[in-house]
Amino acid sequence: MSKKPFRPKARRPRGFEDRTGTTLRVERHLIERASKVYDEWGFEPLMTPAFEYADALGKFLPDEERPNEGVFALEDDDGQWLSLRYDHTAPLARFVAENFQELNKPYRRYQAGDVWRNEKPGPGRFRQFVQCDADTVGAASAAADAEMIALAAEVMRSVGLKDGDYVVRVNDRRVLDGVLESIGAAEPERRMRVLRAADKLDRLGRDGVAALLGEGRKDESGDFTEGARLDAAGIDTVLAFLGATGGSREDVIARLEPLVGASETGKAGLAALAEIAAVLSNIGVGEDRALFDPSVVRGLGYYTGPVFEAELLAQATYEDGQPIRFGSVGGGGRYDDLVARFTGQAVPATGFSFGVSRFAAALSALGLTGEAEDKSLVVVVAAEKDRSADYLAMAADLRAAGFRAEAFVGSGNMGKQMKYADRRGAVAAVIVGSDEREQGRVTVKDLKLGARLAADITDNRQWREEQPAQETVSRDAWIDAVARISARNR
Amino acid sequence: MSKKPFRPKARRPRGFEDRTGTTLRVERHLIERASKVYDEWGFEPLMTPAFEYADALGKFLPDEERPNEGVFALEDDDGQWLSLRYDHTAPLARFVAENFQELNKPYRRYQAGDVWRNEKPGPGRFRQFVQCDADTVGAASAAADAEMIALAAEVMRSVGLKDGDYVVRVNDRRVLDGVLESIGAAEPERRMRVLRAADKLDRLGRDGVAALLGEGRKDESGDFTEGARLDAAGIDTVLAFLGATGGSREDVIARLEPLVGASETGKAGLAALAEIAAVLSNIGVGEDRALFDPSVVRGLGYYTGPVFEAELLAQATYEDGQPIRFGSVGGGGRYDDLVARFTGQAVPATGFSFGVSRFAAALSALGLTGEAEDKSLVVVVAAEKDRSADYLAMAADLRAAGFRAEAFVGSGNMGKQMKYADRRGAVAAVIVGSDEREQGRVTVKDLKLGARLAADITDNRQWREEQPAQETVSRDAWIDAVARISARNR
Repeated sequence: MSKKPFRPKARRPRGFEDRTGTTLRVERHLIERASKVYDEWGFEPLMTPAFEYADALGKFLPDEERPNEGVFALEDDDGQWLSLRYDHTAPLARFVAENFQELNKPYRRYQAGDVWRNEKPGPGRFRQFVQCDADTVGAASAAADAEMIALAAEVMRSVGLKDGDYVVRVNDRRVLDGVLESIGAAEPERRMRVLRAADKLDRLGRDGVAALLGEGRKDESGDFTEGARLDAAGIDTVLAFLGATGGSREDVIARLEPLVGASETGKAGLAALAEIAAVLSNIGVGEDRALFDPSVVRGLGYYTGPVFEAELLAQATYEDGQPIRFGSVGGGGRYDDLVARFTGQAVPATGFSFGVSRFAAALSALGLTGEAEDKSLVVVVAAEKDRSADYLAMAADLRAAGFRAEAFVGSGNMGKQMKYADRRGAVAAVIVGSDEREQGRVTVKDLKLGARLAADITDNRQWREEQPAQETVSRDAWIDAVARISARNR
Repeated sequence: MSKKPFRPKARRPRGFEDRTGTTLRVERHLIERASKVYDEWGFEPLMTPAFEYADALGKFLPDEERPNEGVFALEDDDGQWLSLRYDHTAPLARFVAENFQELNKPYRRYQAGDVWRNEKPGPGRFRQFVQCDADTVGAASAAADAEMIALAAEVMRSVGLKDGDYVVRVNDRRVLDGVLESIGAAEPERRMRVLRAADKLDRLGRDGVAALLGEGRKDESGDFTEGARLDAAGIDTVLAFLGATGGSREDVIARLEPLVGASETGKAGLAALAEIAAVLSNIGVGEDRALFDPSVVRGLGYYTGPVFEAELLAQATYEDGQPIRFGSVGGGGRYDDLVARFTGQAVPATGFSFGVSRFAAALSALGLTGEAEDKSLVVVVAAEKDRSADYLAMAADLRAAGFRAEAFVGSGNMGKQMKYADRRGAVAAVIVGSDEREQGRVTVKDLKLGARLAADITDNRQWREEQPAQETVSRDAWIDAVARISARNR
């Protein structure tokens, strides 16, 4: 007779994550530190909405080799299409164009928040992730680019990374353009093929890149990628360019000069690098923190000059001893054409973006979690029914003494509650049963010591009788007893 | 000949905001403080994705009188419909149901982030806003509700509100249900009408509510709302119930007891309130911070027991002297049926949600902006071309001395740069032109004093010659000079 009610299946959408606990705390720590740096350097916070009109957002997705990669879009009830932002740069261009007259320029803003990509989900590839950006809009000088590079290095330092454990790699797109001009290979499609090939140096090595610069390359799956069809001399020149790294920033510039030849574009790029080098040296950003590397080209089509990439060099290992390779955690560069999409007027801009999820995961692996796990959690056990008010008051006392604390407000016997406290990672459990209450005493249990001792135990009865990891103290001494337990488990 | 390029119009989507500067800083301050409180009380951070499957999210929107109010939804490429979350509670129910076996219960989490409502936009009504929630899932006891109430009061205190400037109003849905049973008016549709009428006491007053409890009410626009059709005695009882506020928490309970009569539901509600009263008193949450108010019913259909509402009582005025009424900045309650949608098994849960945008706006109006504007901004003027590296180094020196600082990296003459610094709210401008450079000196300008003096000036030439708001000091004294300016403008 009774109609069975509809029961939806509780499931997370494909390609999306639930983030919890330490992961989120470290992300928050990173965003707080970065925001503090941006604030101190004179940037203002901005938060654009998740949606932009589809035509205003445009499509500047980084990887032009996956044309199916897209945005999440829906039609509004007035027939206009709305898209979820896929980065913070395109919405910034809209914001600047919309408010151009009133904005105080250069406009310096930072923004941290979710972005969405309607990609095919895969292992470790999510359709929502967090980016944290800073940009200066309305500044054409290489000094503004140098400031972005220094800012990125400062953020890396602010989260606890030691100098030498990270580096910002710097290049200027125009230098490669100059090289291509000098070998007669500057037309747009060829240029794009060379940029894409250069971007794969890391993954494919010199031979793979050489193939992509020449006739093309067949990958492991048998797919053939057409090459840029440079001649042998051209390939050598581009490879020399990509390999012109090492030594001081000035050394790299000196090595690049002959490759650029007479190209004005190339010379402009080298002049920008020279100014960046001067600023960085002057403000104390050494070559261990920001170096010049011609192989940095950045996939994104819209960069027009200097490009930067932040890389983690610190060493860590997986549990099986294999080294973890962190790689790039952010990047940026100069993009002078994005606002012009709206207004027709070129507005010079430069910016930097951190991939928060990836960067935070690396910080976790390196143990640089900030204050994420700073305070010890203590659980007050609900030993007697109807005494919750007492237990909640004890939790308040613990908080006042500087602990994270909660009283157990669920249901379950002592065993279940102890298991709860263990699984929460609590250092101590506090127990006032009827015996303790009548005697004016409190039992305090060291959960970490208890767990270690329990691992060695052979005689259950002896364990129950001796309870070696707990002590019962008077009511005026119980918080001190908790503090001792917390101190010995630090 | 040339094709005119497509130029999208730079415009923010209807019903969405760009948030900037102080607004965002105060929101961040509020979320940081609330998160710290939640952490200390033993809650764990959680961030579910923006999207949920439409069927899993369901539709539990607060205002059942606007059925057109909806969610943003789109079809995924596998044919499943995705909806953007409209609150943090429905995604929590999905998360708990999906991970029920592994979760350590009670599961205590907090989540702060954007939610979206596909509503008709209006003045001050946005389609994206920020909520900050804490919930305890898997705890049936009124102690867990009392903890939520205390937590809300603690968050209000943590952002700098004085006791007496805020209050959490508390009620239990079952008390009104008991009253309705006792007057024979408990069937669902009538109950819903009574709840909706009660929710309007604030707006319509006793007479308006009496009309909605009886035959119905025509509003100013001529629209007629059908009433709950209680008889005169029933209306009196409900109005007595709604007015049973004032005095101690125990006084309110005593006043409600006769109205509930023999109803078991009503008695259960009163028992919960009695336990909540005991816990609150025991953990030091006085009646100035949490009071019982039977008129609090909360619009949301899904609450099943205790309900709470956080209200700001602090006084502030608009610039024209009119008082600002802040009203409710958050609310919550017990909802025992949400997880059951998925599993069929009732899971007791209780929670609280702050409306971050509204709360932060109130804090701004009250001047409780935290450290949002703590540091003074100083702008180093780009007085000579090609000296950016020096100016950026001076900005770095200022930061090291504890200021927010930037060097001007845009283009423009001194007048434009001074205007830039003024509009940024900088306290001081620092100038090293060719004269200063050659003499080893620095000019430091007090921008706030300059603006005040400029308002009184009559003789332009005198002003230019005397420059009363600036001084030129030696290179080893310029940071001290900036510090003096900053100090006198605090």
